Amino acid sequence: MILPLGFRYASTYAGIRKGGQDDLALIVSDAPASAAGVFTQNRVQAAPVKLCKAHLKLSRGVARAILVNAGNANCATRTGDRVARAACRAAARLCKIPMTQVLPASTGVIGVELDAALITEALPRLVTALSAGEFDAVSRAILTTDTRPKMAAAEVAIGKGVVRIAGMTKGAGMIQPLMATTLGFVLTDAAIAPAPLRGMLREAAEHSYHRMSVDGDTSTNDTVLLLANGASGARLSAKDRDLFLDALAHLMQDLARQIARDGEGAGKLVTIQVEGARTREDAVRIARAIANSPLVKTAIAGADPNWGRVMMAAGNAGVAFDPRRVDVHLQGTRVCRAGLAAPFDEDRLKAKLDEKDVTIRFLIRGGGQGQARFWTCDLTEEYIRINASYRT
Amino acid sequence: MILPLGFRYASTYAGIRKGGQDDLALIVSDAPASAAGVFTQNRVQAAPVKLCKAHLKLSRGVARAILVNAGNANCATRTGDRVARAACRAAARLCKIPMTQVLPASTGVIGVELDAALITEALPRLVTALSAGEFDAVSRAILTTDTRPKMAAAEVAIGKGVVRIAGMTKGAGMIQPLMATTLGFVLTDAAIAPAPLRGMLREAAEHSYHRMSVDGDTSTNDTVLLLANGASGARLSAKDRDLFLDALAHLMQDLARQIARDGEGAGKLVTIQVEGARTREDAVRIARAIANSPLVKTAIAGADPNWGRVMMAAGNAGVAFDPRRVDVHLQGTRVCRAGLAAPFDEDRLKAKLDEKDVTIRFLIRGGGQGQARFWTCDLTEEYIRINASYRT
Repeated sequence: MILPLGFRYASTYAGIRKGGQDDLALIVSDAPASAAGVFTQNRVQAAPVKLCKAHLKLSRGVARAILVNAGNANCATRTGDRVARAACRAAARLCKIPMTQVLPASTGVIGVELDAALITEALPRLVTALSAGEFDAVSRAILTTDTRPKMAAAEVAIGKGVVRIAGMTKGAGMIQPLMATTLGFVLTDAAIAPAPLRGMLREAAEHSYHRMSVDGDTSTNDTVLLLANGASGARLSAKDRDLFLDALAHLMQDLARQIARDGEGAGKLVTIQVEGARTREDAVRIARAIANSPLVKTAIAGADPNWGRVMMAAGNAGVAFDPRRVDVHLQGTRVCRAGLAAPFDEDRLKAKLDEKDVTIRFLIRGGGQGQARFWTCDLTEEYIRINASYRT
Repeated sequence: MILPLGFRYASTYAGIRKGGQDDLALIVSDAPASAAGVFTQNRVQAAPVKLCKAHLKLSRGVARAILVNAGNANCATRTGDRVARAACRAAARLCKIPMTQVLPASTGVIGVELDAALITEALPRLVTALSAGEFDAVSRAILTTDTRPKMAAAEVAIGKGVVRIAGMTKGAGMIQPLMATTLGFVLTDAAIAPAPLRGMLREAAEHSYHRMSVDGDTSTNDTVLLLANGASGARLSAKDRDLFLDALAHLMQDLARQIARDGEGAGKLVTIQVEGARTREDAVRIARAIANSPLVKTAIAGADPNWGRVMMAAGNAGVAFDPRRVDVHLQGTRVCRAGLAAPFDEDRLKAKLDEKDVTIRFLIRGGGQGQARFWTCDLTEEYIRINASYRT
């Protein structure tokens, strides 16, 4: 994987989670980087989310480091704010950077006190271990119920030269993006000022993280950060913007799809394509309603071409449409035409629905220009098994 | 069970569903009854829902019969309207009543044509079989994935004498009430005019069917009907209204709880009590968000006192509250105080969470007067097993 220049990484086991899998990680930019973030819209927000927002504001969108732990969300805890601050302060001192340039993130169980000493004691060896080659290790250290690490990388040739973007993300449950979801860290060596960086992150998130759900629950800790350190020497000009944004959105979609595919207990990645809605917002609402219907998700798990449930779910989106103008396609096969059953070969379609990638297309004929793509996964017994016993 | 006077019932197997369990039922009032209904708010509405609404309007709230089938929702079908009309017309002719006084309802699979002949051919024997003693049989004929019939009855002493109310309902999946949910038929021999009857049904539904969900999916066929035939000879006066409404709401809550307890795959009935919200609407939104969170529902299935998920879910309700003023009680044990973990005996609470009735109390201290009670069930692997293979 080709990584952006000028970033170093390290991870270690700090004893925050049981097991022995690395649970603390640090990402450091050699030079001050422009930084932007999108965060959970949940009313209940974890201490690191609040501190991360404050640091971005105080530093006016400049950061040197991301400090992240897994195994404890540091949310709804007595000492939460204090622990997050202590961790950032210790990292800042060791890295010799301003504390406001350390961006914290946490993921794991809610409501259990996090011991700051576990982090501060592990930090010296973490800083010593920083190296350009540990991107993979960090992408593993941030996982919780994920079954695999999630990474993506891209190169973009802009006017002033070639720049690189690389991202990692985590998340498998408690996932429905509102303004952002889960943890995601995207790094680039392009030179971009904080204000345009924020705009691009927001726009790319709208087409990636905001179009994906696993179970419709929005976490208290969702954080996606984008750092641009300019180490490539290539500064993004106004006319490079679309090109770069396209690459960024594409990379973030890749990460979002990896989350949906690895959704807790998921066997299948489900792509929902809605066309012909009045507006893009309407299309997203319909797509989200289909994606979040447990009856649609269990039908997909069972390879059951039950398009009636797709219609039922769309009808609950709070969007006006005429069911008699709706076509539904599953795996490219039209199963509903003008709101009615269309003839299809049931055995053949069931076999196609056994594949790992399932597509649901919901088309309002003669409708508007609004369209949206959305990603989710099927709902299986394994989701229940995982979540009936996660905490204990 | 003490039933209201002046109603007769019959059920039969008409061949609509596989198996041989009765799938067609008729309820007839000896005299014209005042009638009111609440219906699904899904954009996609089944033919019988549309016809039932039209009949209530055309008859100005007077009905003589309810004709209901299980095994086919008669929704998203080419012949849906025609089939629903043909069935009502045949029932009207045989019962010698106006067609607009027959109220149709259907439940079952969506998108499969329903053969009107199955109903019209079964109707003569259904009408012949009408008897005051078949209430139980009808309550069984309307079931689909339900594991047991759901009935409730009450007697109310009003000024002019004693009146009786009896109700039956069905539903186990695709359940989240918006204006109404699932099928429910409530009968009384009180004499009440159509207009006040409508008001009372709406108010009682607000506190019963609208406060209950199984999986957050709203069906295309939801219908709750209330018939008052006056056979008791006792007319409801204005000052009896509160007394009667109280009994009606109580009975409909009983039915709603029976649905939640028998939710697909459910092992437990979960009662959610929210207090201290700004308004009743806010309290309902918080309660519904907790009830519909798959992570809360799986934690209950696993007897896991994971109050962090309750906070997370409440935070997604779209309602402003200060998490630092929230207490959460599970089974009467305070597990979260002022937004933080409260000490409790984990083993003892886990044992209490193994009971068949689970209570979640979410209290905003120093908050407003808004409160709401809501019912749901836990989410188990059995829900997935049932729904991954329902259609085929």
